[in-house]
Amino acid sequence: MSRQESVTLTNMCMIRDGGRVLVQHRTDPDWPGVTFPGGHVEPGESLTDAVIREVCEETGLRIAAPRLCGVKDWVNDDGSRYIVLLYQASRFEGTPVSSAEGEVYWAELNGLAGLPMAEGMDAMLRVFLDEEISEQWFLREDGGWTSILK
Amino acid sequence: MSRQESVTLTNMCMIRDGGRVLVQHRTDPDWPGVTFPGGHVEPGESLTDAVIREVCEETGLRIAAPRLCGVKDWVNDDGSRYIVLLYQASRFEGTPVSSAEGEVYWAELNGLAGLPMAEGMDAMLRVFLDEEISEQWFLREDGGWTSILK
Repeated sequence: MSRQESVTLTNMCMIRDGGRVLVQHRTDPDWPGVTFPGGHVEPGESLTDAVIREVCEETGLRIAAPRLCGVKDWVNDDGSRYIVLLYQASRFEGTPVSSAEGEVYWAELNGLAGLPMAEGMDAMLRVFLDEEISEQWFLREDGGWTSILK
Repeated sequence: MSRQESVTLTNMCMIRDGGRVLVQHRTDPDWPGVTFPGGHVEPGESLTDAVIREVCEETGLRIAAPRLCGVKDWVNDDGSRYIVLLYQASRFEGTPVSSAEGEVYWAELNGLAGLPMAEGMDAMLRVFLDEEISEQWFLREDGGWTSILK
């Protein structure tokens, strides 16, 4: 029996520099607002290589030793799964440069709530920061999506 | 453009009780030897729910708050990807019970090298234990597989 699923693999990385984190103010109309850099895993690409590449493309920073700390995922109506692999990195080289994906800049981690955060980023932050939580899982309920932290 | 890949999603969990870990001596002829419990994610199942279920089925323990700490993955010759999500858990209830998948018992973490470990478990252990390493990635090279820690 095949156990394969159709999966879209993506990533997002919280880059930490002391009490600051690198945020990206996304221009994407589907999910605008302040979040962290990241993007799609390419076919045949290692998951770690993918997050290093995406961060470099979107911020100019070259991160090292990104640490996987959780996932955000859901299953679409067609049965396919969407997974965002969540990483943290505190080692990096370079200076932030914005891209077409959005402006990037350092912000105080404790002050993120005062920024125009992307929808759902408050819950995602808990996955990044709380060692007891490894997943933000979305369930389709009553015609909408419900987010559950696990 | 679709970014979906065909992926087999599985998990493995290192359950810690002080300096001891729960090992499983797998009977699987494809990958025999001492490893940690785990199995397949079911379609539509949350990734966290999957590892909690698999550990319960294979060991009788009910773990709480499993923490994602890395992945083991590779791309098959047909382009499909195989991912093992690696978790740690230090909260659990119950007493270990072996299953048809293999005998389970507590072993000293520092003494694992003296057990008949499954092939490649030494490298996987580094992903579990080293915060600088998040992935064991396999590359097809010269007709064989090469494992790279990232």
